[in-house]
Amino acid sequence: MMLIAIEMAAVITAAIYGVLLALRKQFDFVGIFTVAFLVAFGGGTLRDLFLDRHPLFWIANSRYALIVFGIALAGAAAPRMFVRSKRFLHIPDAFGLALFTVTGAAYALQADTSMFIAVLMGVVTGTFGGVLGDVTCNEIPSLFRAAPMYATCSFVGACVFVLGMHLAVPFVWVAPTAAVLIVTFRLIAVRWNLQLPERGSDSAI
Amino acid sequence: MMLIAIEMAAVITAAIYGVLLALRKQFDFVGIFTVAFLVAFGGGTLRDLFLDRHPLFWIANSRYALIVFGIALAGAAAPRMFVRSKRFLHIPDAFGLALFTVTGAAYALQADTSMFIAVLMGVVTGTFGGVLGDVTCNEIPSLFRAAPMYATCSFVGACVFVLGMHLAVPFVWVAPTAAVLIVTFRLIAVRWNLQLPERGSDSAI
Amino acid sequence: MMLIAIEMAAVITAAIYGVLLALRKQFDFVGIFTVAFLVAFGGGTLRDLFLDRHPLFWIANSRYALIVFGIALAGAAAPRMFVRSKRFLHIPDAFGLALFTVTGAAYALQADTSMFIAVLMGVVTGTFGGVLGDVTCNEIPSLFRAAPMYATCSFVGACVFVLGMHLAVPFVWVAPTAAVLIVTFRLIAVRWNLQLPERGSDSAI
Repeated sequence: MMLIAIEMAAVITAAIYGVLLALRKQFDFVGIFTVAFLVAFGGGTLRDLFLDRHPLFWIANSRYALIVFGIALAGAAAPRMFVRSKRFLHIPDAFGLALFTVTGAAYALQADTSMFIAVLMGVVTGTFGGVLGDVTCNEIPSLFRAAPMYATCSFVGACVFVLGMHLAVPFVWVAPTAAVLIVTFRLIAVRWNLQLPERGSDSAI
Repeated sequence: MMLIAIEMAAVITAAIYGVLLALRKQFDFVGIFTVAFLVAFGGGTLRDLFLDRHPLFWIANSRYALIVFGIALAGAAAPRMFVRSKRFLHIPDAFGLALFTVTGAAYALQADTSMFIAVLMGVVTGTFGGVLGDVTCNEIPSLFRAAPMYATCSFVGACVFVLGMHLAVPFVWVAPTAAVLIVTFRLIAVRWNLQLPERGSDSAI
Repeated sequence: MMLIAIEMAAVITAAIYGVLLALRKQFDFVGIFTVAFLVAFGGGTLRDLFLDRHPLFWIANSRYALIVFGIALAGAAAPRMFVRSKRFLHIPDAFGLALFTVTGAAYALQADTSMFIAVLMGVVTGTFGGVLGDVTCNEIPSLFRAAPMYATCSFVGACVFVLGMHLAVPFVWVAPTAAVLIVTFRLIAVRWNLQLPERGSDSAI
């Protein structure tokens, strides 16, 4: 099933992002694993709890936890390899955001929620892992900084995905389109530092 | 059902409080919506997860999310209208606290918990949204400041509600009484800055 | 059942630790009770939500909440008694960590998770209450300080427990062994300030 492949890719990219975050703070191995674990599993766990999907995706598929453990181990053993790619921090972040947004919205639609709730579930799933990572590393969460539109990218992508599914476009087309859209939009926003106007206006969404 | 009306009123007042909190921090639209969402749904979500009530109240009743979205949009589009009412920040806060406390205790009794657990569930439901709002806006949560007795008001009101239900007083009498009691007690506490003695004493509850 | 006795002891020691934490910050009674409640119930609640065990352990066994309430009351009424034992802060902390780790891993194995997931569930259950206590008292969580290996002790003890159960050693032998190991290891780590190397190395686990 394609959704499983997307979830696997989401876990891997999110774990890499978590390791990079933790290495910047010079955490020890336990800290690195903890941050990787929170970033990789935070959003999906909240989604599964909200939708009452049990066992949780990382309990049902226990390879995920071993993969995250392996990535954290690599991060602790060969930090240079990771730190050299510090400039690329935004790339795994954008992929994790995009892929988790798609899984969140997809599982919500499977659970027969309304379309708007499915969009919100995509945003929650996409962003929560990153928020947890930021909080544990004492950063102001991306979600609450005006700059590069973290949640907005997720929201727009989730809308495209949910609309596509509603119009009966096949999943194999909609899911990659929405994911690519989120990654592109997010990287553009980071590159040119796009932001929503503060205190909003009618065109602020 | 009266409980649904109370829940609806709780969501609306809590969302307004969230928008006011976010506007004080000059958040953009995404920030405003996020804070409104957390304040309006945080307490009830924790209650539903703790009591294993699925689907969650805001998934079961998807109008709630649209209402919160609308209020956040109004806050972003016409911030002046909201900011002018800044002095009244405590009023929606007190109503959200009161109404969510009642729903939390009521659902807990429906789930056949013990009376003390029902009181605690009322307090958790009543206060958690506000705590999330405070945390995301970088305030010290009301819950942990000695001053105006946020949790105490909720606790006292929840006790009155649970005792009333235990004595078989009809819900239509007990619920408004407890809610009015909490709102009054909370506004008095804010107005005259009442507080519990630090490090407590025998009379500190 | 021995597991219930362990859980009861875990709740009591964790509540005492919570009261000591809150008294150091001169919280009022509500603050003391809140911190005791979070430390005593935080880890187990997360475990029950993750494993879909309902009703939650403190709702199923409502004496626990009354016990925590009583300990918080004693802390507010006779703070001197508690504060005098400030030097011993690490002892209830170590016991709470050890006992909750064992309950977490045991319930996870009962729910037929994989061995690695059972170890992680032990660590989550053991550490999360303490993290919540630290966060609400504005400490940097023990989990994220390099020093005395909070999560590492829990991880090692959980591995011993899960391996022992896998080798069919009776629960009445494995559980106390793992718990004593965690307490001893943690107190030694605190006493001599043992820590993992930063940024890890191959031997960093």
